[in-house]
Amino acid sequence: MNFTGKLRQAAEKADSLVCVGLDVDPAKLPVQLASGKEGILLFSGAIIGSTSDMVCAYKPNSAFYEAMGSQGIDILVEICQMIPPAIPVILDIKRGDIGSTASKYASYAYDIIGADAVTVNPYMGFDAVRPFFRDGKCVFVLCLTSNPSAKDFQMLDTGGSPLFEKVAETAVEWSREGEVGLVVGATWPGYMKKIRDIVGDMPILVPGVGAQGGDIGTVVQECGGKTGCTVINSTREILYASSGPDFDSAARKSCLHLRSEINRYRRNGV
Amino acid sequence: MNFTGKLRQAAEKADSLVCVGLDVDPAKLPVQLASGKEGILLFSGAIIGSTSDMVCAYKPNSAFYEAMGSQGIDILVEICQMIPPAIPVILDIKRGDIGSTASKYASYAYDIIGADAVTVNPYMGFDAVRPFFRDGKCVFVLCLTSNPSAKDFQMLDTGGSPLFEKVAETAVEWSREGEVGLVVGATWPGYMKKIRDIVGDMPILVPGVGAQGGDIGTVVQECGGKTGCTVINSTREILYASSGPDFDSAARKSCLHLRSEINRYRRNGV
Repeated sequence: MNFTGKLRQAAEKADSLVCVGLDVDPAKLPVQLASGKEGILLFSGAIIGSTSDMVCAYKPNSAFYEAMGSQGIDILVEICQMIPPAIPVILDIKRGDIGSTASKYASYAYDIIGADAVTVNPYMGFDAVRPFFRDGKCVFVLCLTSNPSAKDFQMLDTGGSPLFEKVAETAVEWSREGEVGLVVGATWPGYMKKIRDIVGDMPILVPGVGAQGGDIGTVVQECGGKTGCTVINSTREILYASSGPDFDSAARKSCLHLRSEINRYRRNGV
Repeated sequence: MNFTGKLRQAAEKADSLVCVGLDVDPAKLPVQLASGKEGILLFSGAIIGSTSDMVCAYKPNSAFYEAMGSQGIDILVEICQMIPPAIPVILDIKRGDIGSTASKYASYAYDIIGADAVTVNPYMGFDAVRPFFRDGKCVFVLCLTSNPSAKDFQMLDTGGSPLFEKVAETAVEWSREGEVGLVVGATWPGYMKKIRDIVGDMPILVPGVGAQGGDIGTVVQECGGKTGCTVINSTREILYASSGPDFDSAARKSCLHLRSEINRYRRNGV
């Protein structure tokens, strides 16, 4: 099965467009958990256990594990092994390098970590993206990111359209050679609709709801509510819903709330 | 001392603009070396030992070590510890992510690996770059990369000038808040001169000579031959100059040849 098929099945089974960001910060663990590797694995396992029936994907960000050194890579591998195999893992790495080097990053993501998909940066162009193509895998290209400085370059006019639209158009071309998705932040209402019109049913991963301020109704309205097409990520609101011993039930409640809110817009319109 | 000062001192002491790329691929080790960690460390130590009096910097690319899993991170740490402390280490990571995540990558590069500088991708803008600023550290921003697909986006016209020139201009602004350099591939003769004119004496790291086809005379002519300003990277020609037991003396010879060629252009003009 290709990636999009796996994503769609997971989304339909869970009736959910929610993706949980697994960015575990050792400094933010509930105090009653052991510190270090043991605490991180207990925490991550409990978060996965309490949300896996309500999500269409998980998205660990490699940075949080790299900051722990080599032990962090082992932890990331173990966390990904705890995720039920039917749920796709999008490894957020935002990499991009010349071909021979990009293939090393692909090996890290797919062979070492066991991810189903990666995020990549488009700045270096297609030969930095192509090495991430593999059967059953998907490459989510940064298009319009959720951070305020996204406007520094992504919104520059490039002959009548902003750079991020060129990236979206180019991603459609790239998708003839492999599975491609886009990353589009929830923090830019108005632009998401233009991108969806350019890319059709291509999967779009949407960070930036919650702490970063993106509005869920707007995301569903502009990006659409189809399974396998729209993936809405939430991290801090779920992982750190409570800092007490009830962190896992609080994470479940927060995830359930997000799923319900998204599904309300999917079913009733915005 | 700031990074540029350290770079200049190292370049003057070695009378060299050469940077050696430490991208050790386990599949390319000389056959007489042990495989695995031991062989990689022996190989890297011998390369460093036979070139350290002739270089101004070393540039390991993190991808090659990440592809080995957690063990690779330990190997990378050990390799960087073998580099004489007066020689700057530019960790090639080409990262870029939202602020809270970028600070994790900075921690990886500086606190775990012990690098003096990093490469970053500008696509996400300033708030993805700023977390890499630290006293004594330098951020090399991808401007015009050496790969053929660099033209996909970097050369798009953005209101009268190509995107890569906008990045160079913006990097000058960013450099008011921290030490900034640029990455400019040797494979685009003509453009390098324009970039040097924009950024003045900003350090420019130049990949792409050797295997990728960049011409050394052109690089020195366009980018200039000043210490602390121009850093010319070579990887494969030095690391794999010989696959036999003489790999270290062959690496030394290749490094010496590159330094001489660069210095000939620096002294006699092109």
